[in-house]
Parts: sequence; C-alpha cells; structure tokens
Amino acid sequence: MTTSNSPASPTKPVKQIPPFQGRRLLPEGVKDLFGTPAAQLQALSDRLRRHFSAWGYDEVIPPTFEYFDTLALGTGPRLEESMYRFFDREGQALALRPDLTVPIARIAATRCFDQPLPQRYAYVATVFRYEAPHGGQQREFYQAGAELIGAASPHADTEILALAVEAIRALGIQNFRLSVGHIGFFRNLLSGLSLSKTETRALIEAVDRRNVPLLNRQLARTSIPEPDRQLLASLPGLCGGPDILDRARNLLPANHTAHAVIDYLGLVYQLLEAYGLGEVVMIDFGEVRGMDYYTGITFEAFAAGSGYAIASGGRYDDLLARFGADLPAVGFALLLERAMRVLERAGQEPVEPRPDAIMVACAHPPCLADLLRRRAFGQRVELDVAEKPLADVIAQARERGIPTVLSCKRAISTQTE
Amino acid sequence: MTTSNSPASPTKPVKQIPPFQGRRLLPEGVKDLFGTPAAQLQALSDRLRRHFSAWGYDEVIPPTFEYFDTLALGTGPRLEESMYRFFDREGQALALRPDLTVPIARIAATRCFDQPLPQRYAYVATVFRYEAPHGGQQREFYQAGAELIGAASPHADTEILALAVEAIRALGIQNFRLSVGHIGFFRNLLSGLSLSKTETRALIEAVDRRNVPLLNRQLARTSIPEPDRQLLASLPGLCGGPDILDRARNLLPANHTAHAVIDYLGLVYQLLEAYGLGEVVMIDFGEVRGMDYYTGITFEAFAAGSGYAIASGGRYDDLLARFGADLPAVGFALLLERAMRVLERAGQEPVEPRPDAIMVACAHPPCLADLLRRRAFGQRVELDVAEKPLADVIAQARERGIPTVLSCKRAISTQTE
Repeated sequence: MTTSNSPASPTKPVKQIPPFQGRRLLPEGVKDLFGTPAAQLQALSDRLRRHFSAWGYDEVIPPTFEYFDTLALGTGPRLEESMYRFFDREGQALALRPDLTVPIARIAATRCFDQPLPQRYAYVATVFRYEAPHGGQQREFYQAGAELIGAASPHADTEILALAVEAIRALGIQNFRLSVGHIGFFRNLLSGLSLSKTETRALIEAVDRRNVPLLNRQLARTSIPEPDRQLLASLPGLCGGPDILDRARNLLPANHTAHAVIDYLGLVYQLLEAYGLGEVVMIDFGEVRGMDYYTGITFEAFAAGSGYAIASGGRYDDLLARFGADLPAVGFALLLERAMRVLERAGQEPVEPRPDAIMVACAHPPCLADLLRRRAFGQRVELDVAEKPLADVIAQARERGIPTVLSCKRAISTQTE
Repeated sequence: MTTSNSPASPTKPVKQIPPFQGRRLLPEGVKDLFGTPAAQLQALSDRLRRHFSAWGYDEVIPPTFEYFDTLALGTGPRLEESMYRFFDREGQALALRPDLTVPIARIAATRCFDQPLPQRYAYVATVFRYEAPHGGQQREFYQAGAELIGAASPHADTEILALAVEAIRALGIQNFRLSVGHIGFFRNLLSGLSLSKTETRALIEAVDRRNVPLLNRQLARTSIPEPDRQLLASLPGLCGGPDILDRARNLLPANHTAHAVIDYLGLVYQLLEAYGLGEVVMIDFGEVRGMDYYTGITFEAFAAGSGYAIASGGRYDDLLARFGADLPAVGFALLLERAMRVLERAGQEPVEPRPDAIMVACAHPPCLADLLRRRAFGQRVELDVAEKPLADVIAQARERGIPTVLSCKRAISTQTE
C-alpha cells in the first residue's frame, strides 16, 4: 500500500500575511499560553492538584460566570468594581468570577450544607478582574487555592498556613516567607477611635504598604490621641519571630482583647513550629490587608525576587452567612503566573514538551502497533505525517533535539558525539 | 501544649437559611461541579492530557474571552449567533470563546507561523454557547480536543481519527463507532445543481438527520433532475464497511472527482485498518455536518446509550488563511460531559475522592512529620482540625468509609468484619 498520491503537505513554514496590522490581536490583560509556558503551567497545576488531594481537599469547579448579584453578595465592595459584567438575552446581569472563594462559599452554603463538617475544597482556575495588569497578573489569571469550611480551631488555621507553605514548595520555590497576622489586633486598636471610613482606609493602606512616613502623615490628619497614634505608627515594624508576640503584649499591657488575639497567634505559631515550619513564618501585626473581608488570621507569602505576594489568605467567618449558612471558614489562593515568574527568575529549568522520538510514516500494522504501545507506556512519540524521507526526518529530529528516529522498528539515534 | 482554648468548631451541619428562595441560584446552562463529578472530570481530563502528550500534542490555553470580531472571523456564521457577547470599558465588543479551534488557528497563524510544521495542539477547556442545553451539554461545557496543523496527508487525517478513537478508549468507553465521511463527496453531488442556500441547507439537514422521508420531501421541492435526486436520496443509506466504497463508485461510474474522494477515503480506511481500528470505523457518505466549515474528511463518534455524538471533527483547510497563514489543518473535539453520561449509563464506577486515613489532631512534631510524609508519598490523609476525641473520629471515619484512623503513630482500622 502506498500513500504517495496524497496531497502535498507544506513542510516549511509559510510566510505570514498578517490581517491584524494596526490593531491589537488580543484585548489588554489576556494572553495566549502555548509551548513551554503552557506545559509549565499544566505541570504546576497537576502538582498542586495532587498536593491538595493528599491533604484531603476536593476539587470544585464553579461556573465561569454567574449572576452578578450573587457574586456581589459575596465579594462586597472588595471586588465588585473589578468584575467583568454582561447581560444574558433575558436582560439578567451576569459577571465573570473575580475569585473562587465566593462561588465556593455559595456552593458550601447552598448545596453542601447537609454534608459532614469540616468540608475541604480546592481549585486551580482562572479568575477575571478588570484592573491594570501588575506583578505578572493579567486581567484573566490563574489562582490555585483551598478553602476549609466549618472549622474555627487553631488546627484549622494552621492547616491552611501549612498547606500554603507546602503548596509553594511543591511548585519548586524554596526561598520565601509567610507573613502571618491577625486582623483582630488592628481592629481592636481602631475600635473606640471613631474614625471615618476614609480615615480608616487611608491608615490601612499606609500600614499595608509598610510606608511609615505616609502612615505618620495620615495619622497627623486624624484626631487620634497621642498614645494610640504611637501604637499605630509602630505597626509596620511589629514584625519578626515569636519575640514579636511579647513586644506586642508590652505595647498594650492592659488590653485583654488584644492579648487574646496575641495568645491565639502564639498558639498558631507553636503549631506551625510543630509542623517544622517555624523558620518560614514571620509574625506580622502590619498584615492588615482585606480588613472588610477577613475576621481572623490573615497572611501573605513573599518570594525572593518579587515585590508582589505570590499567595494570600486568611479567615473569613462572616462570608457563608450571606449565603444562608453561618459557618466559619479559612482559605488561601496562590497566584500561579507570579509563582512562574519567581521560578523563571530563580533560573529553574522549565518543562520542555520535547518528544522522545519521531516515527517515519509507515502503513505496516506491526509498526503502528509499536507506535501505540510506546505511547501507552508514556513515551511521547510523533508520527511524521508529512511523510518525509528518512534522511529528512533524521535531520529535523536532530534540529529539534529529539534523540531517536523510529523507522520500521529500527531505532536510530540522532545524537552524534 | 494544648489547643483546648480554641474557639468551638461546629461538627454537625447547620440548618440552612436559604437566601435564594424564589430565585434561581445559577443562570440557566451553567453548573457547579463538586464531589464525585468534579473528581471524575479531573481524572478524565488528566488521562486525556497524558494521552494527547504521548501523541506529541502540546497543551495550548487561549484566553477565555477575546475580541468578538476576531472570533467571528474564524467561526463565520456557524457559531457567531451563539456567542456570549459583552463590551469592555473602552466599548470594544468581546466574546466568550465558543470553541477552541478558532483561537488555536489564530495562534498557529499569527504567533507560531515561523515554527516547524506540522504543529500539534491539544486542550481541555470549557467553551460557551448561548443555546438550549441538549444531550448533557450545557451553555458552558467541556471540550477536549486536538488540532494537527500544516499537514494534509492521509497519514495526518488518519492520525486525528486514531487519536480520537484512542482518546475515547482512554476515557473507558469501549462500545462506540466512528462514522467517517468526506464533505467533498456531497459537495461534488451538489455542484452544478445550482441550488439556493436555503435549498442546500434543507438538504444538509435532512441528510445529517438520516431522515429519508424528510429528504425526499426536500428533494421534491427542488428542480434537481431525477438521476441526481435518486443519488442524493441514497446518501443516508450509503454507510457501512469498506464495501460501501464500491457501492459509491458504482453509483457514479463516470464522476472522476467523486472517485478521487472515494479513493482517498479508501486510503484512509486502509491506514485505519493498519492501526487496528477497522472494526471501530464506519464509512458514511451521509456524514455532511458542517459543510460551510469542513473541506475534507469529517467524522462523528457515537457511543451505545447516547443519541448525541460524543466527539466530532474533520479537515478545515480554509480556516488558517483567514488569520493570515494558508495552512491545511485537521482536528477533533470530544464532549466531556456527554462522555461522562455514557460512562455513567454503562455503570462505570466513578472516581470517589475518599481519604485513605484521618489523623486525630495532634501537636507533636513527630506525628505531624508522619502526616506530611504520608501525604508526600501520595496518601490522602485528613487531619481532624475539629479536634474531636478519638472515639468520635473513629465513628466519623467508619461512617464515611475511611479505612484507617491515625492517632499518635498508632494506625487503627475502622473496618470490622
């Protein structure tokens, strides 16, 4: 049998006639992933899924879009502004999911409320935010995360912290720190100061940025009494090992609520040490991000070589009640594109999708059976569907760094010393 | 160290207070995936990704949305109507991808046109179509597919057909048939009949449905001469093993173009037999779906117990030119939700995300080290973060069918004979 009367296949790339001259190929903030970055992203996603599963977390896949009102009910003002909104043909407002935590809270509260507690959910998925791209994060970007719902113990908080650390390590990132705080500390300092929303927001921003001059300027604009002002001004520096707990206690000698929060953080830190993770963790009372959302511990992970957090999370005990089930919850999300940038800057070898062999086009059943067998055993083998002569196949394989050419059961090495 | 002063965790599900009474939780046509179906979908996706990779196909991940005009340029009228459209804040029309073939054609033509040919792309991703849900396919649904770009040989067509068959088998579906046709045959029969677009469309629909009475009614409405009318009326029955090729030849003794198409299909069939796939494949001259899109072979896969195709594909040599690179291409897509329905109806055991063990909450470093070690070796071990007494943990494990409870390095079997 011959296939010589087949239509000719181009074997060299054609010259491109670009129909997109003068206009953008893709909207700002979205991208095509192919070749090495796509293979890398897939390999990292697989690793994270296996990791989450080993810790008892179940895959959950909410829809890409749902009712805007439902998402907004969960996100509150936090992400409402950044949602991509559109309308279905019945005029209902829809939106692309800006995170996975809100849909998972909705699922746990409305679909799984009769299941045993705690419930563990994990995901690797893209989310959509209409924001200026920053830190390698586009408008469509990958989050990998986990949510532990229906448990409020130190063990629950510590599990999420440890899971975040081990997930980052599973990606191959070794040089990073987890900065762990508790929103109750900051909230307690602000309580009784009767600040306006604008003042509070300005203080949060300055503390969050660890910008002491800015913080002092913002404090000067408020009527906060001097001792409290000094306390708040010290927040960006209240960060380090477990001795920070004592420093925080000494700053607030008679504040029992603050002491309860400090003691709780101490307990979580001890558990993290028992996990062997003491070295990775910094206690940070300046960790105040997301105060309108979080209700307990909050944390961010920073890697060497990136100014942006590669992961963040915390406890959010008020969210599920909005969907009808008053359950405590804690979780985190890892930003995969930022993690990939860190790996790249650390010079980590990316996953290369290179075939193990090319087989010369052949119509003999034993050769094709051999081809299928090799693939079933996990070898990556291309068939030369362009039906080139053996010498050309060998030349192409050599050029692409493919070590073997198969031709009627002969295996020819393309590597010459 | 004790964690006894931890906040109480609820251990029983709370009563749900539904805030969604009287309104839909999710828009029509989208769904939440969690528990067994989510685990099943993930397991099947993993299997397909490994399968595509072994055949030399690289993962490609286009954005979820892009410019409406760009997508419409590729889909033509075929899918334009069914796209979810929306606008960005600059007033540009965007749309959710209605398939992956068009974005991949765009990527190959505009970004990879200088790479060696052929190029192999694969994906597992959701697509979005504003259509009435049918055959287990919602408005957001999963496609897994492959595209072979830059090769037009019988080996190229056969590779895609064989890849589709092996992908369906990789999912665990055994009882199915691939119906393979060639759009050139039907096109040749229609050429010279000077039919209107409406007449052509009506004929395609009747042939595609294998509805002979409807086809006869449609033919009676046209001015097609009697011999051609008989030929067209015979199309739905022109389906079966390789003997169908001779029947088709005899129907058109002097039509050289039709004979070239029949010979080409015969060549592909011989190659499929060489792959050992002759038994799975039916030659079907009534396979006329997507005539405005396909240019060569076309095929669909049907499984026992489902009236809907679980996979479909074909050759589309005109698509890439629209994006500036005149390259031949062939590909297919598998509909994962439909495949999952087929597996369910065949009584296949689903993937159950059940833990191997629960560990009683513990703050001893050796126990936590043991926990991490087990997980690193691939065991799925939950930690009882609710901090229940041992007896309660054992009772819950037994109820959930979890075989082992770990308590300070003791492994307690929960299975009693």
